[in-house]
Parts: sequence; structure tokens; C-alpha cells
Amino acid sequence: MTNVEILGFVSAFLTTFSFLPQAIQVIKTRETASLSLAMYSIFTIGVASWMVYGFVQQDKAVIVANMITLLLSATILSIKIYNEFIVSKRNQYQV
Amino acid sequence: MTNVEILGFVSAFLTTFSFLPQAIQVIKTRETASLSLAMYSIFTIGVASWMVYGFVQQDKAVIVANMITLLLSATILSIKIYNEFIVSKRNQYQV
Repeated sequence: MTNVEILGFVSAFLTTFSFLPQAIQVIKTRETASLSLAMYSIFTIGVASWMVYGFVQQDKAVIVANMITLLLSATILSIKIYNEFIVSKRNQYQV
Repeated sequence: MTNVEILGFVSAFLTTFSFLPQAIQVIKTRETASLSLAMYSIFTIGVASWMVYGFVQQDKAVIVANMITLLLSATILSIKIYNEFIVSKRNQYQV
């Protein structure tokens, strides 16, 4: 492995797994008020699009990194959507 | 431009600019409680590392995409650090 390959590998590892502490925090606290719904919607679509790109290019590193990121960002997005549309609607009907 | 190049371009555009609504929300509301400090610390280092990778590989697309993402994520991280360490410390001393 060359130094440049190591740099690429470390970069991919950091940007991919950075979403792990955010996912854990959201799962534990169920708190998503300061997370942007637009960000996680656009980001999740973008990561899925990168994964398709990886499949087309048959680039295993791109596929695996984006598969992990997709799992984490889709988890965060799901809880955000749940809080935004289901929990807030439920509270609206409670008097 | 081939279809695969367009797919890569669209993916890069989405994952890069997804951080714009989050940065705008944080700047406007100053609210960062549900943002993970660990995530934005690791992510910002990772994006900086990708930018260095782009410079080494002389890949303009990688440099530009990560430069924009770095600007946005560093902005979010700065406000998170400010809230976490300066605002919360200030409140601690106010009785």
C-alpha cells in the first residue's frame, strides 16, 4: 500500500465512521431538534447515489464505505422523520 | 460527459451541499444540542484529509468538493464547540 492509498483509506474511514457517534446519540436520546431534515434527506440520497456509482464502476471501496454511511445516515433520517411527523402530530392532538 | 461521470458529479454535489441547510439552521438558531461533537470533529478532520488527498492526486473535483464541505462542517463544528464549552461554562457561573 502506498502512502497516498493509506491517506485515502484513512480519509474514507474517518468520514464514514464519523456518523457512528451521531447515530448512537440519536438512538439513545431520541433528540433530533437541531438536526436539519433537509441535510439528512439530501445526504442520504447522495450516499445512495455514490453507492450506485460504486456498483457501476465496480469499485469495492466506494461500495462498502457508502453502504456503511447509508446505513448510519438512513437510521438518523428515520428517527428525525419519526420525531418531526409522528411525535409532533401526536402531541398536537393531545390536549 | 458520460452517464457515469454525471452520476459521480450528481453524487458529489448532493453529499457536498447537503451540509448547507444544516449550516444555515445552526447559524440562524444557534441550536446544536442534538448534534454530535464527536461526529463533527471526526468528519471535519476526515474532510480535511480528503482535501489533502485531492492535492496529492491533483484531482480538482476532490479538492473543490472537500473544500466546500470543509467550510460548511468547520462552521457547524465551531458553533457546536462555542455552545458546548463557552456558553455552557458561562451559564455555570451565573447564579
